[in-house]
Amino acid sequence: MAAYVPSHELIEHIESGQVWAIARLITRAEANVPEAREAIGEIYRKAGRAHVIGITGVPGSGKSTLVNKLAEKLRRDGRTIAIVAIDPSSPYSGGSILGDRIRMADLVLDPGIFIRSMATRGAVGGMAHSALDVVDILDVAGFDTIIIETVGVGQDEVEIAHAAHTTVVVSAPGLGDEIQAIKAGILEIADIHVVSKCDRSDANRCLTDLKMMLKDGFGSSGNGHWHPPVIGVSSYEDEGFGVLIDALAAHKKNSTGPLRRENIARFRLSKAAETLLLEEFRNSLDITASAHQLAARKSDPYSLAMSLIEDFKKENENA
Amino acid sequence: MAAYVPSHELIEHIESGQVWAIARLITRAEANVPEAREAIGEIYRKAGRAHVIGITGVPGSGKSTLVNKLAEKLRRDGRTIAIVAIDPSSPYSGGSILGDRIRMADLVLDPGIFIRSMATRGAVGGMAHSALDVVDILDVAGFDTIIIETVGVGQDEVEIAHAAHTTVVVSAPGLGDEIQAIKAGILEIADIHVVSKCDRSDANRCLTDLKMMLKDGFGSSGNGHWHPPVIGVSSYEDEGFGVLIDALAAHKKNSTGPLRRENIARFRLSKAAETLLLEEFRNSLDITASAHQLAARKSDPYSLAMSLIEDFKKENENA
Repeated sequence: MAAYVPSHELIEHIESGQVWAIARLITRAEANVPEAREAIGEIYRKAGRAHVIGITGVPGSGKSTLVNKLAEKLRRDGRTIAIVAIDPSSPYSGGSILGDRIRMADLVLDPGIFIRSMATRGAVGGMAHSALDVVDILDVAGFDTIIIETVGVGQDEVEIAHAAHTTVVVSAPGLGDEIQAIKAGILEIADIHVVSKCDRSDANRCLTDLKMMLKDGFGSSGNGHWHPPVIGVSSYEDEGFGVLIDALAAHKKNSTGPLRRENIARFRLSKAAETLLLEEFRNSLDITASAHQLAARKSDPYSLAMSLIEDFKKENENA
Repeated sequence: MAAYVPSHELIEHIESGQVWAIARLITRAEANVPEAREAIGEIYRKAGRAHVIGITGVPGSGKSTLVNKLAEKLRRDGRTIAIVAIDPSSPYSGGSILGDRIRMADLVLDPGIFIRSMATRGAVGGMAHSALDVVDILDVAGFDTIIIETVGVGQDEVEIAHAAHTTVVVSAPGLGDEIQAIKAGILEIADIHVVSKCDRSDANRCLTDLKMMLKDGFGSSGNGHWHPPVIGVSSYEDEGFGVLIDALAAHKKNSTGPLRRENIARFRLSKAAETLLLEEFRNSLDITASAHQLAARKSDPYSLAMSLIEDFKKENENA
């Protein structure tokens, strides 16, 4: 087994694109290793060059196949690509179900493509926090385009996709009612709408329905300079990717200015601060006695919670 | 418009089952109205009689139809039923998409059945917090059985269902791969597994697959006294509900003792404390200057977050 390389020493190897160093610091960022925090901070200050694209869509929308194809095309154009795939997984076991992404096997031998799966695990806010650290590491490693892929079902997953420079929401024909309702909820974060599976006969209706919904006020109306386009794509028939790639480039050029960066920074800072605050809170207190009182209905959640918060503050005063 | 009735005065009307009073306090609980907190605390101390059932399942699993049928059956047995349906909705607009539940129209004229939809909105932890307050209000109002229905896709939705006395996970035949992966992640919280749509020809395979997955270590192995049964149900052919109702009663009798109640209390207290702590944190600080520094990459998220937390603590010292 290789010796432990201190995190700050990994930085120069990451800057020269060494996969072993990238992988190590990513692992430490995911595990929230205290020793790595300073290095990850330095990485952040060095990052900011890559185009970060968030791609989200409801289950069954075909977004993974789309990401796969898109990465292939961008790579063929000479760009280097990193994919961070946030996988739905049990909050209890911590296992990542889609983790293997076997379907991407044809890409992994190319050093210009890097793929990493992250399980959502238990830490809701914490996941956003570390996923964005991972993006920075890949940015400093020199990848031109970084794609964050999430299943657009949990709020956190949706927010992560939205914390990119350009957010793509993938729809598809032929999904059930409940899925459609979830879809309606994520339309508004789109900078670019993609309807996948456009080889299907019901795809045209899906395109029309989506355009109607957007007209009816679902979805974002853009930011004055940008009106989210609706692009039909077929991974199977290899169609529509040129239009999508042009739209990504156009959005990068027109709409990833100071305001977007400021909003992303706000989101990121809130997530980081809230994650750390909750971590400190959880570590500092033993709630067993209070929970026991609560279970016996001798007090109520609000009163007990308030006194736990009081205790937490007092502890800080004494620290 | 009716005069504002102070929350503490609503309690006696809730105890006598007055729908107008129930609805008002629920609205205040959802909106997190400070004036209502004391009354909701009193409600909590009075509650604890009802059987609270969490029902969750992936989109398309048919859980809403199942909940509808189950409520009908339990009602016919003479029990009063309340349903709290947590709907997937946009974190941005706050709109509840499935909120109308038109399909339940045939139930709503019976005062022994109460149905309430709650949108997930933006507040992740906060939703769990107020959903469980709503359950207490319905408990004190005298409903025998309270069903919390959630789409099992976000961590919070899953946790809410798990914060019930008995957790039912609904599976169905014929769902896509990605949905299946999400399903695998929620199996382990089940006290009772239901396979819906058992009138379909592929239902048997779904039942067999599920039993295999459970054997392979997915899912809960119970708590020593309880081994989660797998029950096939058809809402369409009206089959399997007797077995389900018996299993619910058996689980209530065998497994909702002190340990379960203690675990629920721990979950609830943590959610309440974390929600209130974050609320206080968000209200107390203006992060604009820090976010500006972050956007310019002059500092990093960790360092800035730490100093925001320091500021928050200092503010408390001076308070």
